[in-house]
Amino acid sequence: MQSPQSELPHIAADLLDRVRQRRPRVHCITNAVAQTFTANMLLAAGAVPSMTIAPDEVADFVKRANALLVNLGTLDPARREASEISIGAAASAGIPWVLDPVFVERSAPRMAFAGQLVKRAPRAIRLNRAEFMALAGTPADGPALARFANEWRAVLGLTGDVDLVADGKRLAAIANGHALMSRVTAMGCAGSALVGAFLAVEDDAWTAVASALIALGVAGEVAAARAQGPGSFAAGIIDAIYGLERDTLIAHARVS
Amino acid sequence: MQSPQSELPHIAADLLDRVRQRRPRVHCITNAVAQTFTANMLLAAGAVPSMTIAPDEVADFVKRANALLVNLGTLDPARREASEISIGAAASAGIPWVLDPVFVERSAPRMAFAGQLVKRAPRAIRLNRAEFMALAGTPADGPALARFANEWRAVLGLTGDVDLVADGKRLAAIANGHALMSRVTAMGCAGSALVGAFLAVEDDAWTAVASALIALGVAGEVAAARAQGPGSFAAGIIDAIYGLERDTLIAHARVS
Amino acid sequence: MQSPQSELPHIAADLLDRVRQRRPRVHCITNAVAQTFTANMLLAAGAVPSMTIAPDEVADFVKRANALLVNLGTLDPARREASEISIGAAASAGIPWVLDPVFVERSAPRMAFAGQLVKRAPRAIRLNRAEFMALAGTPADGPALARFANEWRAVLGLTGDVDLVADGKRLAAIANGHALMSRVTAMGCAGSALVGAFLAVEDDAWTAVASALIALGVAGEVAAARAQGPGSFAAGIIDAIYGLERDTLIAHARVS
Repeated sequence: MQSPQSELPHIAADLLDRVRQRRPRVHCITNAVAQTFTANMLLAAGAVPSMTIAPDEVADFVKRANALLVNLGTLDPARREASEISIGAAASAGIPWVLDPVFVERSAPRMAFAGQLVKRAPRAIRLNRAEFMALAGTPADGPALARFANEWRAVLGLTGDVDLVADGKRLAAIANGHALMSRVTAMGCAGSALVGAFLAVEDDAWTAVASALIALGVAGEVAAARAQGPGSFAAGIIDAIYGLERDTLIAHARVS
Repeated sequence: MQSPQSELPHIAADLLDRVRQRRPRVHCITNAVAQTFTANMLLAAGAVPSMTIAPDEVADFVKRANALLVNLGTLDPARREASEISIGAAASAGIPWVLDPVFVERSAPRMAFAGQLVKRAPRAIRLNRAEFMALAGTPADGPALARFANEWRAVLGLTGDVDLVADGKRLAAIANGHALMSRVTAMGCAGSALVGAFLAVEDDAWTAVASALIALGVAGEVAAARAQGPGSFAAGIIDAIYGLERDTLIAHARVS
Repeated sequence: MQSPQSELPHIAADLLDRVRQRRPRVHCITNAVAQTFTANMLLAAGAVPSMTIAPDEVADFVKRANALLVNLGTLDPARREASEISIGAAASAGIPWVLDPVFVERSAPRMAFAGQLVKRAPRAIRLNRAEFMALAGTPADGPALARFANEWRAVLGLTGDVDLVADGKRLAAIANGHALMSRVTAMGCAGSALVGAFLAVEDDAWTAVASALIALGVAGEVAAARAQGPGSFAAGIIDAIYGLERDTLIAHARVS
């Protein structure tokens, strides 16, 4: 019998196909810096983004979406209100939502707000080591991830040199990606949106989160091979997600 | 005698030259996702964008501009107020304005606001089929476009596989463009801004709207021939508008 | 003895190395149009951007940063408040800040606000000729720049066909750059952010401002040699700043 980890490359290819066929709508409450790149990443993957934060219409958008992203970058009052309304609408409509607690370690109000949102049943949390440390109060290793995935009842997608995906029982380590990914603003934010698109087409959140991060990491490797720096790389990773072939994804995936 | 449609390719080339020479200022009330791409599209065409939405200064910007774009994407309260002030300033100053009722079919408050704006004499409305259906209550075909162009006293620029431009008497069908245009966020929004730039240099709004859409469609074809996906295509269509030559535009235009 | 101007190319190369090694944090209060390009420019240079404008957390970000940029483009009330809080936090923390009075000539409230900010001890002001004319009430030539650098106690970095950098005693003229730089939105804004990154690693503000503008101008020339228009140029200048080699920078710098 195969381990669940060893099946992930094929599943990631299946789920990317599914996103391309079903074209899920992903509503994104995200920071102004990230909006364009995030929308283009979703479109390239086959998903359909929307981004309004107006309090009187955001619920309408969320109810007609297939997944929701709540990203805390640029946490102004309007986005805070939009986040709360959206999470309520997602819960009512039964659609999954992803939390991206950007820079939560840098500001006390952001930390407090993230602490509240963690309790509102995100299907997944996509974050980096500094953000996990701030939220959990302990460094990110396998056991800590498992413990907090259980406590928060959410799949954790921790990105870094090696991405770790934990749901409390299963842990996947994904050794894909490229250093240029950290030189493009909103790469993590766009990754969280991609997680939303995969959650929209797959109920097993651990599988969905891992698959999205595998696809993004492999696309980063493909793009890096052609790029002359972070400017051409930013366009190139959008091209790569759009054109990513099943065999390339499976051949490049490094999951354990 | 030639039909007005058959003259459009040459006129489009003339108007693009005119934009490049006169460098009209286009003030844009547009959504945060679209701002950068829209500004770069205008700059590439030779126009000069401004984008403030601050209530106490937006009228100053509009009065010194040559055209105004009001785009309803990300319809937050600040943009709503800025839109109303701007339309008033445009009317006082006698400059043309374009309405882009983005996603009007997705939210009731947006629909209500768009309904009000349609009555405030936009020179042109740039929209897609779903948006027309929501606003007009009927599918978009030639007769329906003519009827609503008359009712709203605005030139309608309906974009899709084939773009249709109607002013109540004349109808142009433009079969340019490329499928990658729908995979780049804010392509429609940037097209609406380009419509604004062309309206700034040509009083016959039907001619101006059709010319802008022909130029954008041909640029899309030129860019698609070089692109590796939607990321390089987004940069490439900016390059293509910037470098678009008269002969290329005329040779590629497919207008009937 | 060498003139201070003649030493600038080597110093610019040294400071770019220092930015890459120290990775200074630059907090940016900047307009929505400029945020993504500015963040990517800083990341490409080796700096680390943050961009929140939320009133209750912006001071936390500024205190942990190494430099602050205050850019007046899209001057909405939230950014105005964030600017005032940030400048106070920068003064308390003793970190340098750069003012970019974008479009100050176009609106009376923006002019009034810029007039106040000039009195709050920016380490540098990055602006163009029209903005200087509006703020100083006199055309930008060497003596006028020297006089206002003294009056405002700030280094002035005036960008245009030739960039001029004045601190009241020294004047550098930098004949680098390329015409395509004026066809990409937020190029000036991103240049101001780069000035912030250089101020973060060098106490002599005249040297820091001149070095940042030399690096950007040379990167523009490198990018223009490869670009097919302003779209590919925008990505290319990010690539060029990222990959800019010491010898290239020194060989291309034209400073007097």
